Amino acid sequence: MSRSDVNPPSSSSNQIEGRVLRYAQMHSIVQEGFWRRFSSLKLDSLQLDESPIEIIGFYAPCSHAKVPNRLMLLEESLPSDLNGQSSSSEFSRGNRNRCSVPGIIYNMNTLESFQALDKQMLLKTEAKKIWKDICSGKAEENPATLSRFLLISFADLKKWNFYYWFAFPALVLDPPATLVNLQPARQWFSQAEGESVSAACNEWRRSSATTEVPFFLITISSNSQATVRPLKDWAHCQHDNEKLFFGFYDPSNHQNNPGWPLCNFLALICSRWGITRVNFFCYREKYGLADLGLSLVGEALLQVSEGGKDPESMPSTIGWEQNGGKSGPMCISLAQSMDPIMSAEFSAGLNLKLMRWRTLPSLNLNVLSNCKCLLLGAGTLGCQVARMLMAWGIRRITLLDNGRVAMSNPLRQSLYTFDDCHNGGDLKPVAAVRTLKRIFPAVEADSIVMSIPMPGHPVPPHESAKVLQDCAQLEKLIASHDVIFLLTDTRESRWLPTLFCANLNKIAITAALGFDSFLVMRHGAGPVIIRDEAEDTLGMSSLSTKDVDRPHRLGCYFCNDVVAPIDSTSNRTLDQQCTVTRPGLAPVASALAVELLVGILHHPDRINASGEIGNSVGGSGEQPLGILPHQIRGTFSQFSQITLIGHASHSCTACSSTVVSEYRRGGLDFVLQAINHPNYLEDLTGLTDLMKTASSYDMDWDDGTDLDDEI
Amino acid sequence: MSRSDVNPPSSSSNQIEGRVLRYAQMHSIVQEGFWRRFSSLKLDSLQLDESPIEIIGFYAPCSHAKVPNRLMLLEESLPSDLNGQSSSSEFSRGNRNRCSVPGIIYNMNTLESFQALDKQMLLKTEAKKIWKDICSGKAEENPATLSRFLLISFADLKKWNFYYWFAFPALVLDPPATLVNLQPARQWFSQAEGESVSAACNEWRRSSATTEVPFFLITISSNSQATVRPLKDWAHCQHDNEKLFFGFYDPSNHQNNPGWPLCNFLALICSRWGITRVNFFCYREKYGLADLGLSLVGEALLQVSEGGKDPESMPSTIGWEQNGGKSGPMCISLAQSMDPIMSAEFSAGLNLKLMRWRTLPSLNLNVLSNCKCLLLGAGTLGCQVARMLMAWGIRRITLLDNGRVAMSNPLRQSLYTFDDCHNGGDLKPVAAVRTLKRIFPAVEADSIVMSIPMPGHPVPPHESAKVLQDCAQLEKLIASHDVIFLLTDTRESRWLPTLFCANLNKIAITAALGFDSFLVMRHGAGPVIIRDEAEDTLGMSSLSTKDVDRPHRLGCYFCNDVVAPIDSTSNRTLDQQCTVTRPGLAPVASALAVELLVGILHHPDRINASGEIGNSVGGSGEQPLGILPHQIRGTFSQFSQITLIGHASHSCTACSSTVVSEYRRGGLDFVLQAINHPNYLEDLTGLTDLMKTASSYDMDWDDGTDLDDEI
Repeated sequence: MSRSDVNPPSSSSNQIEGRVLRYAQMHSIVQEGFWRRFSSLKLDSLQLDESPIEIIGFYAPCSHAKVPNRLMLLEESLPSDLNGQSSSSEFSRGNRNRCSVPGIIYNMNTLESFQALDKQMLLKTEAKKIWKDICSGKAEENPATLSRFLLISFADLKKWNFYYWFAFPALVLDPPATLVNLQPARQWFSQAEGESVSAACNEWRRSSATTEVPFFLITISSNSQATVRPLKDWAHCQHDNEKLFFGFYDPSNHQNNPGWPLCNFLALICSRWGITRVNFFCYREKYGLADLGLSLVGEALLQVSEGGKDPESMPSTIGWEQNGGKSGPMCISLAQSMDPIMSAEFSAGLNLKLMRWRTLPSLNLNVLSNCKCLLLGAGTLGCQVARMLMAWGIRRITLLDNGRVAMSNPLRQSLYTFDDCHNGGDLKPVAAVRTLKRIFPAVEADSIVMSIPMPGHPVPPHESAKVLQDCAQLEKLIASHDVIFLLTDTRESRWLPTLFCANLNKIAITAALGFDSFLVMRHGAGPVIIRDEAEDTLGMSSLSTKDVDRPHRLGCYFCNDVVAPIDSTSNRTLDQQCTVTRPGLAPVASALAVELLVGILHHPDRINASGEIGNSVGGSGEQPLGILPHQIRGTFSQFSQITLIGHASHSCTACSSTVVSEYRRGGLDFVLQAINHPNYLEDLTGLTDLMKTASSYDMDWDDGTDLDDEI
Repeated sequence: MSRSDVNPPSSSSNQIEGRVLRYAQMHSIVQEGFWRRFSSLKLDSLQLDESPIEIIGFYAPCSHAKVPNRLMLLEESLPSDLNGQSSSSEFSRGNRNRCSVPGIIYNMNTLESFQALDKQMLLKTEAKKIWKDICSGKAEENPATLSRFLLISFADLKKWNFYYWFAFPALVLDPPATLVNLQPARQWFSQAEGESVSAACNEWRRSSATTEVPFFLITISSNSQATVRPLKDWAHCQHDNEKLFFGFYDPSNHQNNPGWPLCNFLALICSRWGITRVNFFCYREKYGLADLGLSLVGEALLQVSEGGKDPESMPSTIGWEQNGGKSGPMCISLAQSMDPIMSAEFSAGLNLKLMRWRTLPSLNLNVLSNCKCLLLGAGTLGCQVARMLMAWGIRRITLLDNGRVAMSNPLRQSLYTFDDCHNGGDLKPVAAVRTLKRIFPAVEADSIVMSIPMPGHPVPPHESAKVLQDCAQLEKLIASHDVIFLLTDTRESRWLPTLFCANLNKIAITAALGFDSFLVMRHGAGPVIIRDEAEDTLGMSSLSTKDVDRPHRLGCYFCNDVVAPIDSTSNRTLDQQCTVTRPGLAPVASALAVELLVGILHHPDRINASGEIGNSVGGSGEQPLGILPHQIRGTFSQFSQITLIGHASHSCTACSSTVVSEYRRGGLDFVLQAINHPNYLEDLTGLTDLMKTASSYDMDWDDGTDLDDEI
C-alpha cells in the first residue's frame, strides 16, 4: 500500500498512539459493464441531458491481508432505464459482498465541461447529504447513507474512452480525532471476548437483514458475551457493565489505519451522540468469516465542535480519490477490450442515436431495425440502396438478382470490387451480401438468385413450370418482407412485383434512371376489393368482385402508362444494354428512395399517407422528417428536383382493382397469360379502347432509357 | 483434314483425273489483338455506326505438310483510327508471311441484327468487286484483289464475347473446271525444271517487290529455265516453245486439292484470257523455300461461259466459312484470356464511352482522365466523391485526411469496412486508397496523412514550425493538382485551402452538410492582382498592390460570411462531433459535387464560367451537360433543390484580393497570424467595421451543423 493511500499521510512509525487518526483511502474499481450500460443510457435516454443520476456502488469488508476492498461499479449500479430511476429493485439485496453505497454520477457532454466542473462544490453537495442524515437521525436508521460517493465523468462514445474521477466525501472533524490506541482485535480482546465477537459478527453478516448494514454497535457484557446491534439501538446500550464498540465493515487492509468509512462514522458518533472517547472496531474478514487478526480495535478521542449537530455548520470535507499517488481524473479505453462485433453494432447505431439527441427526437430506430427490405436488383441502384438502408439502421436486407459481376460494374455498383469479377464474375446478390457483412458484420442479409418473370417475354411451354415457380417464389418473398424496392433495369421486370405489392398491400418504392434524370416514387396502397357475397352465395359460376377502391389512392409506377409493359431488352445496342446514365444519378436516386422509405415508416398513415408537395402552402401537418412526397423527379441538366403526386389509374396494368382481382381469381395462370400476351393486359384494363380514342403522348421516363444495369 | 474442308467434297479416291476440280477451303484465324483494337474503335469512333469498314487479312503459302495456312486477322488488320481509313501505311509491306488480302467487316450493334444480315447479298457484293477487277483488268495489275474476304460480327463489349463469320467469296465456274491431272510438282517437273522453278520462285518470294504477290506466271523454256513473271506479262508469255504455268501461293496443305485462291484465279484465266486448258502451280513452302514435294501442279479444263467477261454476268458465288463441318457463326470469349487489369481498364471506360454514342457525343474523356483531383477529407463526403470521380473516368486522385477509421465509419463512409477499424483503425486516406485500387486497380490514387492548419486554433510557438510545414505542403499539393474538393467537417479547415486555391486560381469545389440540407458550390476564380509598378519603383517600404479584380467573379465558401472562421470543434457534444446528418445527404451532395466538376471541365470558360440558374430564361447557350450553376442547395425536408449565384465579396476572409495580396506579401507568416488571431482577418478585410454597422443575420449553413466527420 502506498503512502498516498492514507490521508492525511500517516507516520511510518508504529508508534501511533496519541497521534492524529488517519484513514486508509477508499478506492474505486469500475467494471466494463458499467460503462457499457452507461453508454446505452447516454445515447438512448439521457442524450444531451447533463443532470446527475443516482447510482449505487458496492463494497464489502476487506477479506485479504494484502488486498483492500474497493468500491465497485457494476452494470447493476445503473438503472436499466431512467423511468424506473432506482435500480435497487434489480439487484438482489442481501448479497454479503455487495453492500450498497449511494452515489451520484455527473456525466458531462464534453471533455471541456468535465474539466470545468466545480469539484469542491460537488463534493460539498454530497457531503451535505451525509451531514443532513447524521443530523436528522436518518443515518442511524439507515447507516448505508453514512458512506456516499460521487463520480464525475465524460464518456467519449465515439472512441470508447471514459474519463472519470471518484470522490468519497468525508466529514473532517475539527480538531481531528486523536488515536489513543490501535491494535489487532485479537490482541485487544480476551480470547472469550474475541470468540464471542467473532460469532456475533458472523451472525450479523450471515443474516440477510443485516449483512449489508456496514455500521453497527457491539456490546460485550461482563461475562464476555458479545452482541451486535443496529445503530438505532445506541440509546439502549448505555450500560455501565458493558463495553461498547462502534463497528463498521472496513474495506482497508491496512494494519495501522482504519478505512475511510470510519471518518463519517466518527462524525456521527461525535455530533449526534456527543461521545468524546470512542472504541471502534474495524471489521475485516477471511474466507467470509470475521478475522480478528486482520480486524482492528482502536480507541480515539474526539472533540465535540461548537456547531454540534447543527445542519448549517457542516464540517469541512475531503474525498477526491487519488489515483496512483496523484490527484486527477482516470481514463479508461474500452475500444480494445470490447468484442469487435458488439462494438460494431454499438457504433453502427451511434450516429442514428445521436440524431435523437437534438435534431430528431422522434426517430424510431426500432421500426427501422425491424423492417425487412427486399431489393429487386443488385446493380447500381441496388448496391447503393442497400448501403443507405444500413446507414439508416435497417438490418434485414434481402437482395435479389440473377446477374454476375462484370468488369465494368465495380466503378458504379458500390458493393463490388475487381476481385468479384474474376472467372466470369460472382453472382451479384452473393457478392453484395458478402460486402454488406464486411461493412457491418451484424447485418441480416440474404441473397436470392433468380430472374423476375416479365410480360412481353413469352415463355415456351416447357419452361412454364420454372417460370411459375419463380412467380410463386417472388410472391412468397414479397409477402415475407415489409418493403420492396424496385431497382431493376427494365420497365417490364417491375410489373410482377408491382402487382404482388398491390395485392399484398406492401410498401413498394421504385427508383428509375434516365440519362441525366431520375424518378423515385412510392407506390400507393393496394386496391380495396370486396367480394360480392350476395352473388357468391347464389352460386354464380364466375365469381364477381366489386371495386370499392379508395378514392384518392396514390398511383404505382405503371399508373401513367397507356401501354402494357413489353419486351424492351431485345435488339438493343450496347449503349442501350448498359448503364448509360450520368454516374451521379444512381447515388442520388438511391439516397432519395431510402429517405422516402424512412419518411413512410415514420408517418402515422404509413402506406396510406397521402402525397405531399414540397413547400406546399396549407399542407397537412409536416412530419419531423419533412414532407412525404409521392414522386420525386430530378434532372442534372438543370440541377433541379420536383415533387409530384399521381393518383392510381383505373386502367393501370399493374395495380388497378381490375388487374388485382383478376390475379386473385386466376392466380399464376393469369400471370402466365400476361407474360405471354401483352395485349391481354391492355384488353383487360381497357387501355386498348383508350388508345383508340386518345392520342398517346410521349413519356419522359419510359422510352427505353429506364436502364440501370445489364439485362 | 476433314472432308468438309474441301468444297465440294472431293472423292476419297486418288483417281482424281477427269473429275470436277475441288478446292480446299480457306480458313480464318483471328488474333485477340484484332478484337481488342476493334473494340476500341467501336467504342471510341464507330459507336452506333454500322457502316462496313475495310480491313486487311494476311495469309501465306502453306509451309507445313500437315498444317494449312490460314487467313489471319491481326491488330494491324484494322485502321488505328478511322480518319486514316487505310491501314496499309501502318504495317510494313514486304513481310513474306503476311500477304495482304483486302477485306471488309460488317459489325452489327445487336445480336439480332447480326443474325438478320442478308449473307447471300453481302457475299455477292464482295464477289462483285472481284469480278469487276477481273473484267477491268485491275486484277492483273494487282493480283491481291483476286482474293477478298468478308467478316460479319457482333461484338458484345460488355461480356467480351465476339460473334463472327467469315466468307471468302469464290466465283463458281459454270460448268466447273475439270481436273485432268494433279500431282506433286516434283513428279511433274524434270529435275532440271524443278530446280529452276524452285530457284525462280524463291527469288520471287525473296524480292520485297513481289514477295506479297500471290498470283504469278511461270514459264519454262525448252532448256528447262524457269522464269516467274507478273500476271500483267501474260500477253508476252505466248511462246510455243515455253510451258506456261499459272502459279499462286497456296495456303492449302492438301495433296489432292489446290487451295481456295485458285478458284478466282481460274475465273480470271478463263474469263479474261479465254484459256480453256490450264496448267496451274500450287506454290507451297518448307523452311521458307519452295517445296516441290508439297507444291502441286495440275491440269484443268475450263469452259468459257457465255457471258464471257461481261461485268453484268457474274458467275454465282460461294464462300461462307464452314466451322468444324457446320455452317454458322463462331463465338469467341476473350473475358478469360484477357489480362485482368487491362480488361478492367477497358471495362471501366465502357459506360462512359457508350455515353458518347448517342447521348453525349461531346463528352471529353481525355480531359477527365488527365484531371488531377485533391480531396481534402476522406470521410463520408470524401469516400463518395472519390467513387464518383472514378465512375466519371477520373483516374488521378489524392486523398488527404489525418483521421483513423472508427467503428461507426463504414456504414456511412463507403470506402471502409469493418476490417479497417481494428487496432485503433487504419489511417483513413491509406485505407481509402487501398479500396479505390480494389475497385479499379489502374487508378492512380495517393494518400496524404496530414491535418490542415485552421484559423482559430492557435499554435503554440514550439509547434509553429510543424504547422508552417503543413501549410507549405498543402500549398504544394494544391499547386500540383487541377481540382481541389473541400470535404472536411469544419468551416475553419476550409479556409486555408480556399485561400490557396484563390491564390493559385485552382478549381475548388465545396460540399457541406447540415442535418437535412446540403450546399455544393464551386468557388469562383481567384482575384486578379496587379502590383503597382510605379509605387514599387519608388521604393516604398510597404509594397502596394492594386485591385483590378474581375467585376463579377463568383464567390467562395466564405464570401457570404460576416465573421472570420473560428474554432468550432472545442467543447462540442458527441452529437456535434459526429456525422449527425440524414444518411442520404452525403451521397447526394457528393454526386452533385462531381457532376458540377464534370460540367466545369466541359465548359469552354472552365473556372471563369459564369453561374447559371436552373430553368432560367434567356440564359447563355446551355452546354451539352446542362447548366453550370454556382451553388446548389438542397433539403430533404422538402425534397427540393435550388441553384443560386453569389458573387465574390470584397471583404471575404479567404478569396478577396485584400487577403490574397496580403498572403502574397506575408506568405506563411500571414497564415500564422490568421491562425493565431482570428480578429486579424476581420480587421484586415473590414468585417470588423461592417459588423459594427450591420446587424449580422443568421446563416443557415454555418451554425456549427456543417459537420461531416469526427474532429
